[in-house]
Amino acid sequence: MLLLIPGPVQTRPETRAAMAQDIAPWDNDFRPTYAAIREQVRAIAGGQEGVHATLPLQGCGHFIMEAAIRTFVPAGGKLLIAQNGSYADRALRLATEAGRQVVALPGPDTRPVTAEEISAALAADPAISHVAIVHHETGSGIVNDPEVIGPAVRAAGRRLILDSVSAFGALPVDLAAHPEIDAVLFTSGKCLEGLPGIGFAVARIDSVTAAAGNAGSWSFDLSDVYQHALRAGWGSFRFTPAVQALAAFQVALGIYAAEGGQPARLARYRENMRVLRDGVQALGLTPYLDARHQGPVILTVHQPADPAFALQPFVDALKARGVLISNFHNTKVPTFRIGCIGAITPDDMRGAVAAIGGALDALGVRQREAA
Amino acid sequence: MLLLIPGPVQTRPETRAAMAQDIAPWDNDFRPTYAAIREQVRAIAGGQEGVHATLPLQGCGHFIMEAAIRTFVPAGGKLLIAQNGSYADRALRLATEAGRQVVALPGPDTRPVTAEEISAALAADPAISHVAIVHHETGSGIVNDPEVIGPAVRAAGRRLILDSVSAFGALPVDLAAHPEIDAVLFTSGKCLEGLPGIGFAVARIDSVTAAAGNAGSWSFDLSDVYQHALRAGWGSFRFTPAVQALAAFQVALGIYAAEGGQPARLARYRENMRVLRDGVQALGLTPYLDARHQGPVILTVHQPADPAFALQPFVDALKARGVLISNFHNTKVPTFRIGCIGAITPDDMRGAVAAIGGALDALGVRQREAA
Repeated sequence: MLLLIPGPVQTRPETRAAMAQDIAPWDNDFRPTYAAIREQVRAIAGGQEGVHATLPLQGCGHFIMEAAIRTFVPAGGKLLIAQNGSYADRALRLATEAGRQVVALPGPDTRPVTAEEISAALAADPAISHVAIVHHETGSGIVNDPEVIGPAVRAAGRRLILDSVSAFGALPVDLAAHPEIDAVLFTSGKCLEGLPGIGFAVARIDSVTAAAGNAGSWSFDLSDVYQHALRAGWGSFRFTPAVQALAAFQVALGIYAAEGGQPARLARYRENMRVLRDGVQALGLTPYLDARHQGPVILTVHQPADPAFALQPFVDALKARGVLISNFHNTKVPTFRIGCIGAITPDDMRGAVAAIGGALDALGVRQREAA
Repeated sequence: MLLLIPGPVQTRPETRAAMAQDIAPWDNDFRPTYAAIREQVRAIAGGQEGVHATLPLQGCGHFIMEAAIRTFVPAGGKLLIAQNGSYADRALRLATEAGRQVVALPGPDTRPVTAEEISAALAADPAISHVAIVHHETGSGIVNDPEVIGPAVRAAGRRLILDSVSAFGALPVDLAAHPEIDAVLFTSGKCLEGLPGIGFAVARIDSVTAAAGNAGSWSFDLSDVYQHALRAGWGSFRFTPAVQALAAFQVALGIYAAEGGQPARLARYRENMRVLRDGVQALGLTPYLDARHQGPVILTVHQPADPAFALQPFVDALKARGVLISNFHNTKVPTFRIGCIGAITPDDMRGAVAAIGGALDALGVRQREAA
């Protein structure tokens, strides 16, 4: 079965094999593994020793995002969220329920937010202290580029939180060149091709130190995660982690480095996307995004107009052909989505295109333009 | 290597083997597994269909404890915590940082809190709405028995939150007989002998429904976890879980049932403890707890007075003999601790006692009474 949900993503056999062991998280033999992971992901983020620190947290992407918002946005602060997709909607809810003042900057989920829009929103409200953007919007497939948004935030003297959960490791992040970024957030189970269970923030040490007392939650206080590392060592996890996911993540990071790191991973995903997008168009289907706004992570496709199409039967027919995609969509109009990330190749995507064609034929879907 | 840290605990090979697979959490083929887990743990908790629901949460024991406190204790409520151990200290910190009013009922970590102490504290402060106790205190090994404390809480018309992280599955819990319990909390990686990564609350549906809006955190809102299940089905996890830990947990629950469930597991752990406690006493060591207060989960032992003893070298010498214990302690006086839980037998404990004797001899520890 080919997992294109994503994620969790398809992993390599040697990565998931590392899950099948009992591990003592605080054992001196495991501490170097964990400490090395922290160094490796800081390097992937372009973080600098003494300036940036890797702060892991048990759980999922939502948890590390809530933790970052609680930690970096003080009680009196105000958070601007570029609201152009379903994960931005979720960030808005996370921040609001955490009691933060939130300003939404709404936009369509079919294109990135622009620097001009961010600048105008910041100029209009001097009380805004922080901006949050979703790097890659898993709901649609667009990319909000920190290379574009970062300078606008910096010029306005504000701080940036970068939710890179479904992009990190594939799309470039260079924290050293972006002092306006308080933290970039990601998880073990996406473009770094590990298994789910651990979230990460690579954060500025000065920001996280200044944020002590902000969180209103011990569990979600990243400044306490940092203090724990100072006190107990960089090989010590705060509270019990999904430690098998850490062991597998180390294997995944080794594969990542051997493949050639971020540029190589992005190149593979881009080629996956090219094959997939060309392929579904050749089948008569309509991608949700214009080509110029199509990121390399996920292809969202309009559900066909033909009444013979329904999402779950289509997902089932694809599964019968060895390809698993999500049985839900996060766009307002009916779509389905196919991931291009994970331990998968352009040949896998050719197989996926063939499976999609076979599934549509089997369901008798002839009218394939957008519903 | 025998893991006696605990936990994560030693697991059975077939349990951890289930970790080594890619799984789509929302796939229709996985949903019955997850839904069945929820039913099985509700049954272990003595919960009733239509009265109690299983509410899982990504992460560790601290997370499910913070979630329960945030969910059940409203902003105007007040929480009494029986503070007789290091995990009670942690509950106090979790509740305080979450902004709840907390009243500590301090007591020694060498005996359980009594019903009389709870009744007196509740009588003294009518504003207290909730009580939290740690079922088994992993810091020392004592048991705060909900069969004893529950009636006192019920008689006073208050609500009880039961942190059973290191006890659930071994020590009995009967929610049907204890309507004063809002929720019992536990994780996948302790006495049910799964791998770490998922926390669980088995909660009263009326309490969790009434608690909507309390949490001040979307991530930690158990009422939203419940609403998600109503909306998306009992086979749907809210947010991405450490799904491999769920698959392994299903295997572990099968083993649990085949062993004979809670009575059989408790009997095995009690025998593990008897062998271990008798064994270390025969070696001249002094248990931290009186025999009458010794729970079946963890044996805490005074560090020997001999200056030849130091904790890390002792842990290393034990590890060289195939036994892994924690390299830290949670008592105020110097101790070390040995777990009796996990997929381990009385014969394993006999091996552990021999290893302890060998390690002490190798370090030249002759004075073995308490330091």
